[in-house]
Amino acid sequence: MGEPDESEIIEEHRVEEETEAKGTRSVAASCSSFPGSVSASDRLLGHSSTQSSHRLLAYSDALISIIATVMILPVAHTKMEDDEELRQSVQLLLTTKIAVYLMTFLIVTVAWAAHIRLFQVIVRIDDCLALLNLACMMLITFLPYTFSLMATFPENILGILLFCGCVMVIGVIQSVIVLYAFSRPFLLSEHVQISENQTFYKHHILKVIMRVPLMCLFASIFSFIFFQLSYVLLAIVIFLPYISQCLKWCRSKAIGQVDESPESMLFYTYLPNEPLSKERVEAFSDGVYAIVATLLILDICEDNVPDPTVVKEQFGGSLVAALQVYGPEYLAYFGSFATVGLLWFVHHSLFLHVTKTTRFMGLLNTFSLAFVGGLPLAYQLTHEFPRNSRNELEAIQISCVIIFFAGIFQLCIWVAALYNEQETLHPYVRYGGREHAFMLAKLALYPCVALGTFFLTCILSRFSASIFHLMEITVPFAFLVLRLLVRVGLALLRQIFCPDRSDLRTVVEEDDDEARVPFNAVVT
Amino acid sequence: MGEPDESEIIEEHRVEEETEAKGTRSVAASCSSFPGSVSASDRLLGHSSTQSSHRLLAYSDALISIIATVMILPVAHTKMEDDEELRQSVQLLLTTKIAVYLMTFLIVTVAWAAHIRLFQVIVRIDDCLALLNLACMMLITFLPYTFSLMATFPENILGILLFCGCVMVIGVIQSVIVLYAFSRPFLLSEHVQISENQTFYKHHILKVIMRVPLMCLFASIFSFIFFQLSYVLLAIVIFLPYISQCLKWCRSKAIGQVDESPESMLFYTYLPNEPLSKERVEAFSDGVYAIVATLLILDICEDNVPDPTVVKEQFGGSLVAALQVYGPEYLAYFGSFATVGLLWFVHHSLFLHVTKTTRFMGLLNTFSLAFVGGLPLAYQLTHEFPRNSRNELEAIQISCVIIFFAGIFQLCIWVAALYNEQETLHPYVRYGGREHAFMLAKLALYPCVALGTFFLTCILSRFSASIFHLMEITVPFAFLVLRLLVRVGLALLRQIFCPDRSDLRTVVEEDDDEARVPFNAVVT
Repeated sequence: MGEPDESEIIEEHRVEEETEAKGTRSVAASCSSFPGSVSASDRLLGHSSTQSSHRLLAYSDALISIIATVMILPVAHTKMEDDEELRQSVQLLLTTKIAVYLMTFLIVTVAWAAHIRLFQVIVRIDDCLALLNLACMMLITFLPYTFSLMATFPENILGILLFCGCVMVIGVIQSVIVLYAFSRPFLLSEHVQISENQTFYKHHILKVIMRVPLMCLFASIFSFIFFQLSYVLLAIVIFLPYISQCLKWCRSKAIGQVDESPESMLFYTYLPNEPLSKERVEAFSDGVYAIVATLLILDICEDNVPDPTVVKEQFGGSLVAALQVYGPEYLAYFGSFATVGLLWFVHHSLFLHVTKTTRFMGLLNTFSLAFVGGLPLAYQLTHEFPRNSRNELEAIQISCVIIFFAGIFQLCIWVAALYNEQETLHPYVRYGGREHAFMLAKLALYPCVALGTFFLTCILSRFSASIFHLMEITVPFAFLVLRLLVRVGLALLRQIFCPDRSDLRTVVEEDDDEARVPFNAVVT
Repeated sequence: MGEPDESEIIEEHRVEEETEAKGTRSVAASCSSFPGSVSASDRLLGHSSTQSSHRLLAYSDALISIIATVMILPVAHTKMEDDEELRQSVQLLLTTKIAVYLMTFLIVTVAWAAHIRLFQVIVRIDDCLALLNLACMMLITFLPYTFSLMATFPENILGILLFCGCVMVIGVIQSVIVLYAFSRPFLLSEHVQISENQTFYKHHILKVIMRVPLMCLFASIFSFIFFQLSYVLLAIVIFLPYISQCLKWCRSKAIGQVDESPESMLFYTYLPNEPLSKERVEAFSDGVYAIVATLLILDICEDNVPDPTVVKEQFGGSLVAALQVYGPEYLAYFGSFATVGLLWFVHHSLFLHVTKTTRFMGLLNTFSLAFVGGLPLAYQLTHEFPRNSRNELEAIQISCVIIFFAGIFQLCIWVAALYNEQETLHPYVRYGGREHAFMLAKLALYPCVALGTFFLTCILSRFSASIFHLMEITVPFAFLVLRLLVRVGLALLRQIFCPDRSDLRTVVEEDDDEARVPFNAVVT
């Protein structure tokens, strides 16, 4: 984002050889939409109001990331009484609010993915498109509320109608955006702009976009007759494309390459390896991590400034004594900020080495973020109950489970990227690359620590709080010295399995070179 | 953010001539830190763990923008009873919560500016710097809470101590970051890296950074003896550098160029025209606009889903009737989202044409954002009171005043940019540029409309609500047809003042060319 020209290439990694640098650049260029060459055609057409869409998209990502995490607030603010068992209240939460949170997160990210898909085809904007997009955003930010109405009053059709209404209007606005953009082809991506059958693209995209609002129209009509059917329709509209395409993709991978679309359709394929703008995945993730990291301080700033009269009457004017009551909340804040921050750090390290993001990686990222959203809540619970109570132990274990899943899905992103490493990863972190082991260690640290803490608290349940706090304090330092640890670990492994070290090193380096060869071969 | 290579240049505007394109590029390159050329020196040094800082900075901007707006929540959630006069409750708010909000906003943006300054010198990061920065962020996000403690208990020194403690630790971490970065020169900006007296830079930067924590140390020591003095010290530490440097700058502009620093010190000068990373100003503004736009929907999602039992008992099971109670809140949400969105749109249009941001423009932007933060609150008030009450009228007028100031400060940014247009603006929007009038119209629309609405509601106070709603609905459409309106307006002006149109057009075009000549002359 920071610098013009070649920053994208430098940002990825320090490039060692000139040839490799060129390779990376051309890969990057093929992922994006040839902005450099578009300017030439643009210049010929001479439309002075055209703008790059990058800031509009950044703003949209910020809005969507806020709205995706908003439904965690009702969960976080549920009062939990100390005398009732946590198990019971958690069960109550699980059935309603957490489910609502996860579902809204999914629905909003589906809307976000549709937005990415649209603006991978339309790469430039003008004022009119910017305003249309803002209108679209307004409706997307209203979706969580309509969904929570639907969840609270499942038998009332008003929720369904509102939800479907929003989705239909969004669909109509997006269709208008598509029609507008195709009427001004200089707004489109180079790929579509130079294509001979633009009309085919237009119809295909419109068909894909209108499918959802049409289903919603049917759902809202059916809701008057037999509302259960509406829910089935809505579930189909959200999940079926993904499931069917996943199956199709798995089958094509299992049997062999079955190229169904004769067109070189890059986007709107719904295939798991459809490209997904890496910058937008990063921007959206940054937004979610930032909001989740500050969730607790928002509450603290609002609720935990004691009233002067209360301090005078109940604590004899001692502010320190009054604030001590809130002690656990501060601890929870620092703990959750550190954990979310470090998970962001791992995410950041991973995406530094990713050269192309696919839809499947985006889905895994969404799952990881959904768990991250629950972290502050879990951390808050760990400090709210009396020491060594059953509730405290369970809260700590839930925290560990959440950290574990947030981390394991990040690891899955990497595994998914490794599956197709020629396209998606920088040579450094591929099998045999010099940063491979270090990256694996970074990604595996949190899942391993969380798993370890979980089992330790099972065995030594009396010391669960101490173990958990120790974990919170150690992990940041572990990240600081991780490179050292990895080196020591690798050296040890070498000592054990292959005492003749110099030989192995040569093998590794040869491996390294070999790994880079096909990459160069592909791009030149 | 989106695309590699030349996107920055395209993003600004469609470039018409090849020479101009080159000019823009070299200006952009001189503003940033020569990322292209740094990669070469970096390559020689061969540190594989070095990364671009752009995502770290984007994440920091997101965190800081959230935390800057957090203190508006206590203001927004203050219960206002219908029977008491708004004037009285507003007075109560003004004295405490709004002051706390504005002060925290200022303090956080001061910390943010210091962060920008630091990372304009350190342009690359590694894992260690990323982790140190996260620790720094954790403390910055805690600042608003310590400040609100200070404001609630002004006579208790605990608030002062906590605030000073945080600032001191932040200062120490930033010093460690500076020392670490200067020990690894490949992390520094090209400008410092090639400089002969790096040590001078290091000492100068450390001196500037340590000044604030040292003052805070004194403030915390004095707080034990005579706490009023601490507040004076804290006020000095925040405001004095700006005031003194502004005066110095004004004097130098009035008397003549007095170049005080013999060094070509680009950053850490505290001069109003010190460059401020444009990307970070945009990212921070995007964050604030996004949070402010969604503030009301956050509340709606949390509080305005009615309880099923309440709906059954009080509304006879009619969800529509239950939701009608919340009607004003939905209206407030859509109104504030649209207004904030359109203000963002104006900001976005303005910064498309800005080529370099200065500290002074950043300050004006901060003021604008501080007013934007108050918008949702004002909108919520407009719908909370009974029709045609005195309270409603005042709430509407307060909204108009807030919109007016938010817009007028945006206009001020443009005026400040025009003052030094050769450096800060693209030729299109300079005096005589073809987009000049259009840009002015965009920036002036909201202030004018707000002012008009304000005076109309003063005169026709009975119809204030209708006027206000009409304004809300008309403005988005006004933006849509603004280009047309400007053209018609200009044509009319021409008709009136200069009936011989063809002559004037030639003059304007000549003007246009003339305006571009010095720009080309400067860069070639």
